[in-house]
Amino acid sequence: MRVLVLGADGYLGWATCMHLSALGHDVAGVDNYFRRDAARRLDLPPLLDPPPLPQRARIWKGLSGREVVVQALDVTDLAALFRLCEEFRPQAVVHYAEQPSAPYSMMGAAEAHFTLVNNLVSTLNLVQVVGRLDPGVHIVKLGTMGVYGTPNIDIEEGYLTLTHKGRTHTFLYPKTPGSLYHLTKAQDSDLLYFYVRLWDLAVTDLNQGPVYGLFTDEAGGDERLLPPFSYDDVFGTVLNRFVTQAAAGLPLTIYGAGGQTRGYINLKDTLTCVRLALENPPPRGEYRVFNQFTETFSVLELAQMVRQAGEALGTKVEVRHVPNPRREEESHYYNPVHRGLVELGLNPHLLTGEVLGEMLSFVMGHRDRVRPDLMAPRVSWGRAG
Amino acid sequence: MRVLVLGADGYLGWATCMHLSALGHDVAGVDNYFRRDAARRLDLPPLLDPPPLPQRARIWKGLSGREVVVQALDVTDLAALFRLCEEFRPQAVVHYAEQPSAPYSMMGAAEAHFTLVNNLVSTLNLVQVVGRLDPGVHIVKLGTMGVYGTPNIDIEEGYLTLTHKGRTHTFLYPKTPGSLYHLTKAQDSDLLYFYVRLWDLAVTDLNQGPVYGLFTDEAGGDERLLPPFSYDDVFGTVLNRFVTQAAAGLPLTIYGAGGQTRGYINLKDTLTCVRLALENPPPRGEYRVFNQFTETFSVLELAQMVRQAGEALGTKVEVRHVPNPRREEESHYYNPVHRGLVELGLNPHLLTGEVLGEMLSFVMGHRDRVRPDLMAPRVSWGRAG
Repeated sequence: MRVLVLGADGYLGWATCMHLSALGHDVAGVDNYFRRDAARRLDLPPLLDPPPLPQRARIWKGLSGREVVVQALDVTDLAALFRLCEEFRPQAVVHYAEQPSAPYSMMGAAEAHFTLVNNLVSTLNLVQVVGRLDPGVHIVKLGTMGVYGTPNIDIEEGYLTLTHKGRTHTFLYPKTPGSLYHLTKAQDSDLLYFYVRLWDLAVTDLNQGPVYGLFTDEAGGDERLLPPFSYDDVFGTVLNRFVTQAAAGLPLTIYGAGGQTRGYINLKDTLTCVRLALENPPPRGEYRVFNQFTETFSVLELAQMVRQAGEALGTKVEVRHVPNPRREEESHYYNPVHRGLVELGLNPHLLTGEVLGEMLSFVMGHRDRVRPDLMAPRVSWGRAG
Repeated sequence: MRVLVLGADGYLGWATCMHLSALGHDVAGVDNYFRRDAARRLDLPPLLDPPPLPQRARIWKGLSGREVVVQALDVTDLAALFRLCEEFRPQAVVHYAEQPSAPYSMMGAAEAHFTLVNNLVSTLNLVQVVGRLDPGVHIVKLGTMGVYGTPNIDIEEGYLTLTHKGRTHTFLYPKTPGSLYHLTKAQDSDLLYFYVRLWDLAVTDLNQGPVYGLFTDEAGGDERLLPPFSYDDVFGTVLNRFVTQAAAGLPLTIYGAGGQTRGYINLKDTLTCVRLALENPPPRGEYRVFNQFTETFSVLELAQMVRQAGEALGTKVEVRHVPNPRREEESHYYNPVHRGLVELGLNPHLLTGEVLGEMLSFVMGHRDRVRPDLMAPRVSWGRAG
């Protein structure tokens, strides 16, 4: 299958390119290098900062003999995206080309504007190009569980059928996102759902929980092929940050009470989920939604698990509560359905002590690079920038 | 009260400026003249094409002795909006500054892009400026009933409380819009709702049905103060088009079966609704929604009413069904609640034979200007542009 990966330079992008390439697919990957540039501008270097795409593609070719065609391209440039698709003729597109950070989107007016325009225009452009060239192309878009917020009822997988005053209707599940970033992901889901209804596109939306992990089968022992492991408060995800704090002998910082519960997923499972979605496309005219995570934990539970994993390695881990910079429920009901991907064959990697120990050991090996100043929250949700 | 009207040049904008000015409020109005420019570019001149804002402000000052400060300004220019608000210090902002046409948004990729970026960035900029300068400023945003689509259950006023698997939650009412324009209106409602939750803004969202009419108390007999009456398939609303077709001796063109039912409102009532919202602001932290229409009709019913009004004036009116260029239900359940504005004091002008006769007579008096070629639908929902 010819698969185009938009946002190929990110945490998930290059790992996805290699995974699909290893399976024998023809893969092309593009990126505008936003996250890389923003991390440099904000002085938030990842623990691992992989080489640019062309270099990784060369390393991968040397390792696997397989070619991934990569290119610097901004998906918000409609003409450029159209030319690329006209030439490469993808049968499926994996869409990661979004500003991926909630805190970044809450920094100020400029970052909010960038997040809104980048995320929605990239999605609109993809729809327009697919609609024009071949409406049968399968769009696999990375969403986020964060679009749902924390409603007091079960979170279903995409849709909600309800009875109101004796009549019944099925809606797309209503979203109550907690950051502008999450809002834009809900908005681009609405865009996709709309154009599916209109032009009978075939779309899979993967509402993913926070991802953790470093290792993939394809990267093997080559550190240059590992993802850009961020642990800072802007681009890092919570478990990666906790592991880094533990590895560096710093207290784990819990925002507020720590009862915030989310669904988590191992990076390896993300790759499997994307593969399963690609291998089992929905028919045209279906907007399919999967809730892409494997287990739920509260922040407190995560901290406890990291503490135990640290202790198993002989490291004492402190846990500290800090004022919550976000505006969110710190104790709430949370019961999201996540059946679809399991039914397609997902066999989860769970968050065991062994998995945490492996991550911890790796980060400990790079402890000298950890900058403690990057981990304190500095973006507040509660005031205009 | 100091009220800033964004989109002051449009169908509702200048009428609102005069209405609020006549009530003694200090009014400033801005516009980027998008609709005027687009109508010229697309060769879709309105039946009435009022003079630019500065000239209308001068006429209004001559008539009323009251000053409305007007300015050409694009609300998507954050710095310009910030400067204006810093200087004028509005206590309330009426936000009409959006690309207002569903067919325009469905023309092609460029128009879709413009609609998305203009509508969302104008709303985001307003939020950012209010959040920075004074979060207590009341934002009154013109929404549309079209965001709801035609669900099989009652459309409540803004929110939906539902019980699912024995648990209860109140969501913002889920939206299923039928055009990209309507989608952007749902998306900017989501933006406003989000920032209300975050920064405790005070917002009223007026989900308005299609507006009809020409006359306002403030314009009186001066035709130069009437709104830009569009009857074309892009910028015209359905009843204004039917009246124009009848006045010009052309058949009323019904899209498809004609069972499409919507809530309608007289232009005069729009002004009253905006005034009522301004005079009764919600507390900070409330995102308040009103469904702003007074009666529901199917397209077929409207056509019958226009036919009868024409016959009362001695004009034979034909009705013709044409293939529906839109993708929508042509027969559906429709029962939207519209209580909030009535509770605040709205006393509706209903769509009587007299009201229709008055519109018909006026348009007949300008029959020579009607261009029949502007009324056939030319934008199809069903294919990529």
